[in-house]
Amino acid sequence: MRAMAKAPVLTPRADDFPRWYQDLINKAELADNGPVRGTMVIRPYGYGLWERMQSEMDSRIKEAGVQNAYFPLFIPQSYLTREAEHVEGFAPELAVVTHGGGKELEEPVVVRPTSETIINEYFSKWVQSYRDLPLLINQWANVVRWEMRPRVFLRTTEFLWQEGHTAHATYEDARDFAAHIHRDVYGAFMRDVLAMDFVPGRKTRRERFAGAVNTLTLEGMMGDGKALQLGTSHELGQNFAKAFHTQYLSGSGEQEYVWQTSWGSSTRMVGGLVMMHGDDNGLRVPPRLAATQVVVLAIKGDEAVLDAARKLGARLKEAGIRVQIDDRTDTPFGRRAVDWELKGVPARVEIGPRDVAAGTAMLARRIPGGKEPVALDALPGLLPGLLEEDQAQLLRESRQRRESRTVDVAGVEEAVEAAATGWGRIPWAALGEAGEAKLAEQGVTVRCLVAEDGSVPGTDDEAGAIAVVARAY
Amino acid sequence: MRAMAKAPVLTPRADDFPRWYQDLINKAELADNGPVRGTMVIRPYGYGLWERMQSEMDSRIKEAGVQNAYFPLFIPQSYLTREAEHVEGFAPELAVVTHGGGKELEEPVVVRPTSETIINEYFSKWVQSYRDLPLLINQWANVVRWEMRPRVFLRTTEFLWQEGHTAHATYEDARDFAAHIHRDVYGAFMRDVLAMDFVPGRKTRRERFAGAVNTLTLEGMMGDGKALQLGTSHELGQNFAKAFHTQYLSGSGEQEYVWQTSWGSSTRMVGGLVMMHGDDNGLRVPPRLAATQVVVLAIKGDEAVLDAARKLGARLKEAGIRVQIDDRTDTPFGRRAVDWELKGVPARVEIGPRDVAAGTAMLARRIPGGKEPVALDALPGLLPGLLEEDQAQLLRESRQRRESRTVDVAGVEEAVEAAATGWGRIPWAALGEAGEAKLAEQGVTVRCLVAEDGSVPGTDDEAGAIAVVARAY
Repeated sequence: MRAMAKAPVLTPRADDFPRWYQDLINKAELADNGPVRGTMVIRPYGYGLWERMQSEMDSRIKEAGVQNAYFPLFIPQSYLTREAEHVEGFAPELAVVTHGGGKELEEPVVVRPTSETIINEYFSKWVQSYRDLPLLINQWANVVRWEMRPRVFLRTTEFLWQEGHTAHATYEDARDFAAHIHRDVYGAFMRDVLAMDFVPGRKTRRERFAGAVNTLTLEGMMGDGKALQLGTSHELGQNFAKAFHTQYLSGSGEQEYVWQTSWGSSTRMVGGLVMMHGDDNGLRVPPRLAATQVVVLAIKGDEAVLDAARKLGARLKEAGIRVQIDDRTDTPFGRRAVDWELKGVPARVEIGPRDVAAGTAMLARRIPGGKEPVALDALPGLLPGLLEEDQAQLLRESRQRRESRTVDVAGVEEAVEAAATGWGRIPWAALGEAGEAKLAEQGVTVRCLVAEDGSVPGTDDEAGAIAVVARAY
Repeated sequence: MRAMAKAPVLTPRADDFPRWYQDLINKAELADNGPVRGTMVIRPYGYGLWERMQSEMDSRIKEAGVQNAYFPLFIPQSYLTREAEHVEGFAPELAVVTHGGGKELEEPVVVRPTSETIINEYFSKWVQSYRDLPLLINQWANVVRWEMRPRVFLRTTEFLWQEGHTAHATYEDARDFAAHIHRDVYGAFMRDVLAMDFVPGRKTRRERFAGAVNTLTLEGMMGDGKALQLGTSHELGQNFAKAFHTQYLSGSGEQEYVWQTSWGSSTRMVGGLVMMHGDDNGLRVPPRLAATQVVVLAIKGDEAVLDAARKLGARLKEAGIRVQIDDRTDTPFGRRAVDWELKGVPARVEIGPRDVAAGTAMLARRIPGGKEPVALDALPGLLPGLLEEDQAQLLRESRQRRESRTVDVAGVEEAVEAAATGWGRIPWAALGEAGEAKLAEQGVTVRCLVAEDGSVPGTDDEAGAIAVVARAY
């Protein structure tokens, strides 16, 4: 008779990827569904991931010369209608407040789906002359887009994000700034902190932000081969400037419209992190992101064990490691170990009475896996290097997945086939907008256009551009 | 003939305090009014003050063992009605979303005015046994309370805040935690970072948070003698626990209702900072709060001047000072100096060509006032101590103002008189709820009850308690 296999903690990814995702979100205590359709409650462990993302992004955004500000949640409905493409894009997703303070409002107000309109209303007051440019503003805020097919972190009615909005004197300056954010803020953050491989590219006309003249994107391949858009940076041209009369007096005394950009990244990245790095045992958090890089687990509640755990904790902290002590010895050890696996803390140091006597501990590494005894005294010297190895491994794995699951295809049919398990690459000249429309009928989209050398095309119809096609979240 | 006095930058406080406040908010570029009644746009300089408050508060909140999370903006209307006093308190201020995604909603949703209800819905799921307690959660969020008489930062339809929500196994634990936040988080922050004097006390029944059994408050005296509530910490008893069935299995196997607290502090503190420390020349920012503690002003654009300014900036940064270089030499020097006065940066170091030659600079101190030449080389050693002096001076001034403008009064009439210029103190036993109601008819309220020794009364009717009465924002 065969021994019964232990029931897995999560539905295996290979059995049902969406269910695995939902299991992980619940069991690692990242989030719950909210009571209003499509909303979510971000639990402390999930919010901790977002807080670390915020703090890392915020310092990069400030380094780019951008200042934070805050614009109102409520936007007069009339603002939305001033930019024709913008209202068309967002009208179906709006939440509308019709009553305030016990009365029906004279003009309904919209809960912001994004803030280009209200921000331009103020830019038009603040910008007078070329001396006021560039004006570089960012806000951390919640936005609402009524979601018909919600999925926690990935598509939620309310989500948290940063949205940057800038105004420049020239087309070139705006274009370069949008590219700078795309490459040096978003790209560098995703790669260096989130250990996420991505393809940077340009959206097709069809996939562009409503109101933009160019949308730059970072597309990541998830564990099931689908694509997730991880952050976008838009050139808005003068579309909003003309709608809101955002003008400046040039050096030569002319009134000119400003050139603008906007760019955003959101709590969606938390979902992307799960689907990019998670495995059948749970999440794996890149060490540079992790609020807790190492957890020291006291196996028993003996004073000697607790003392050794605390001493080690203090030494690891001195070594610059973000460390947490788990001394909840009234909860069974096995349950705690499974919980840390689920939560994806990169390294777990387990200390029991025999370890204390021997001056050792068991080191369990979440990212490469495996467990081995290590001398307690060696850990402060050892762990920083291992964490860097882990960080590199996650990035390598995600790159290898994308490379191994991306194929060159010749036409729509092959592209749809490729998108069943990964991504397809096809010359944009061969696909075109007609081919793109055909793909869309089968739920496959052009995620972005890339140049042959991997760079980002400078125009919509750059010769030699390749379309990356996939199913997407 | 008398020389014409230079027109003041702001309306003097003595002429019209509310107009002085509005002038300062506008000219120091702290905020603008938003397009929807009662909303505000927080401009970068104002938001910078809030960001620093957030970061200082956040670390203190975390030190108290509290974890951040995020709950939805939208609350089903039915939740609000479950706690009778709570709904009565908030119903007149609600913003209601009736349409989402192009359709009328089956149940209207409320934009959160505060989150006790939705948080209890989740606490009731998360809390199972005594092992899950205490549960200590905080969120940084925007909330909406429809405001009939808005005033920027002080009373706005939307404001930013933190709201803490905790659940405890016993009454005593909840009571002590509410007091801990009041004293060691809010109190310590206001005193040590904001340099704000305050009276810590207990609200009367009439002034309590809707749904609380006890509200602790910090009341500060503004420049015009009125009071501003700077932060509140509530004991909720078991009111919400009973409404939402938030129960736990006790050590002895009984289902018990949890005991709860909630506590909040908001962007209102920015308004309080202005009205507490501002003078006729603008804001004065306490050095420990200031994002920029010292600005180094290059008077002219000569390379030697710019170079000296940058070198000094680097040395001050090394000395641990938050420093900014103002090299906008295409803007007249006088205008820049006035702007820094308005913004209240604690110290301004002005460097011109003659200063470079002499190895000196002019040091202008915003808080004590005055300007004197100082050797460039002396500044890195000198400034940290001066900034600490400035910090202490602001706290001292605000304490002196309160002390000199608070008088003991014997009855309602005297109390109203005292409230015209400051605060009155009257034994609660002499005033009572009837006297409190009479005061309210004349726009004067009991800000809080304090014990004779200055401590916070433990009950509503503690013998010897004194009522502090004032007009309030």
